[in-house]
Amino acid sequence: MRVELMQNLLGDNDTVAAENHQLFNANRVLALDFMGSPGSGKTSILERVVRALNDLRIQVIEGDVATANDARRIEEAGAEAFQINTGGACHLNAMMIRQAISQLDLTATDVLLIENVGNLVCPAAFHLGVHHRLIVSSVPEGDDKPEKYPVAFRGCQGVILNKTDLLDNVDFDTERFWSLCRQLQPEAVQFETSCPSGVGIARLCEWLRKQLSAPTTS
Amino acid sequence: MRVELMQNLLGDNDTVAAENHQLFNANRVLALDFMGSPGSGKTSILERVVRALNDLRIQVIEGDVATANDARRIEEAGAEAFQINTGGACHLNAMMIRQAISQLDLTATDVLLIENVGNLVCPAAFHLGVHHRLIVSSVPEGDDKPEKYPVAFRGCQGVILNKTDLLDNVDFDTERFWSLCRQLQPEAVQFETSCPSGVGIARLCEWLRKQLSAPTTS
Repeated sequence: MRVELMQNLLGDNDTVAAENHQLFNANRVLALDFMGSPGSGKTSILERVVRALNDLRIQVIEGDVATANDARRIEEAGAEAFQINTGGACHLNAMMIRQAISQLDLTATDVLLIENVGNLVCPAAFHLGVHHRLIVSSVPEGDDKPEKYPVAFRGCQGVILNKTDLLDNVDFDTERFWSLCRQLQPEAVQFETSCPSGVGIARLCEWLRKQLSAPTTS
Repeated sequence: MRVELMQNLLGDNDTVAAENHQLFNANRVLALDFMGSPGSGKTSILERVVRALNDLRIQVIEGDVATANDARRIEEAGAEAFQINTGGACHLNAMMIRQAISQLDLTATDVLLIENVGNLVCPAAFHLGVHHRLIVSSVPEGDDKPEKYPVAFRGCQGVILNKTDLLDNVDFDTERFWSLCRQLQPEAVQFETSCPSGVGIARLCEWLRKQLSAPTTS
């Protein structure tokens, strides 16, 4: 019975996710879901992206268990931010996104960046209707993360290895990390970034701009 | 209805957790639950603790979504390890622990160390029946983690700030971190550790030995 309920919940979620996806396409909005552990650097990357793409109309949805700190950081970087506090829930779901976008003007939006709750397990099970799911994994977390959290890495379209400035300070085998990623999801685009210096952000933004021209393909 | 089911599930869990707790006390086993983000260094700390307390009979239960890597690391450090693969579930629960300890000899165990699934949200909602819940939070995750993930920090008996060797390499305000911790849980014991050098492990082990003499107090 537990399993059945879970299936129903996921079924409902997938229906709403598909509707969100149609809404994004109808309004020509490119939507991305950023997932990763607490402290992997999701907000720092979004701040950098928002500043770098200041010619685009960007909306950001911030998902957190508590606080509106991340939304404040994004607004300081120059984009509008909508904070969802889940209260205790460990992931965003399609219904939360539906509710948020009903309050945003999608017709005046080019890109919607969604930062999921810091969690490498649960968010992977709940599609939001975005075009691409990107995982942010940071160097100090260790090079074994893909095999320890395979569901998230298997279900993504891109992986951002963040905090590469710490490669000299911790024991991390970059080759091993990317090899594990490829085993789980050979198609995923690979990025390496460092937010203090901004290394790698330009390549990420370039890729993002390319997706803008064909948001309906995935 | 969803909420009700959740309450029932948690109700069941709490019943089994209370039974686990009685089992630990009846067998004079000190039990601890280590929670933290993926890559916060839980396994590294347990390896260090196992090596330092080699005069005690230690059992370790490793909770992971996938792989038996952590159990292998613990056995190399010299303790017996029991790996639970949750298959996708984002936290351990009291029933999983019950099943694991039914296969361990508690009468020949002084300390049971449980490493929860890497996740700073979900494990906090599921008591396992242990005497103390310790959070491992690492410097590169950022000093804001207590306020971003308040449920876990509010419900713990101790916080281990790990990877202090990276304090010179990242922007982290130690005072702010501990102040946020104290606001959420004034009673929690505070530790600072670094696993490459082993700094802080002796104090953690000393505290752990003290708890051995009175495992039934909490």
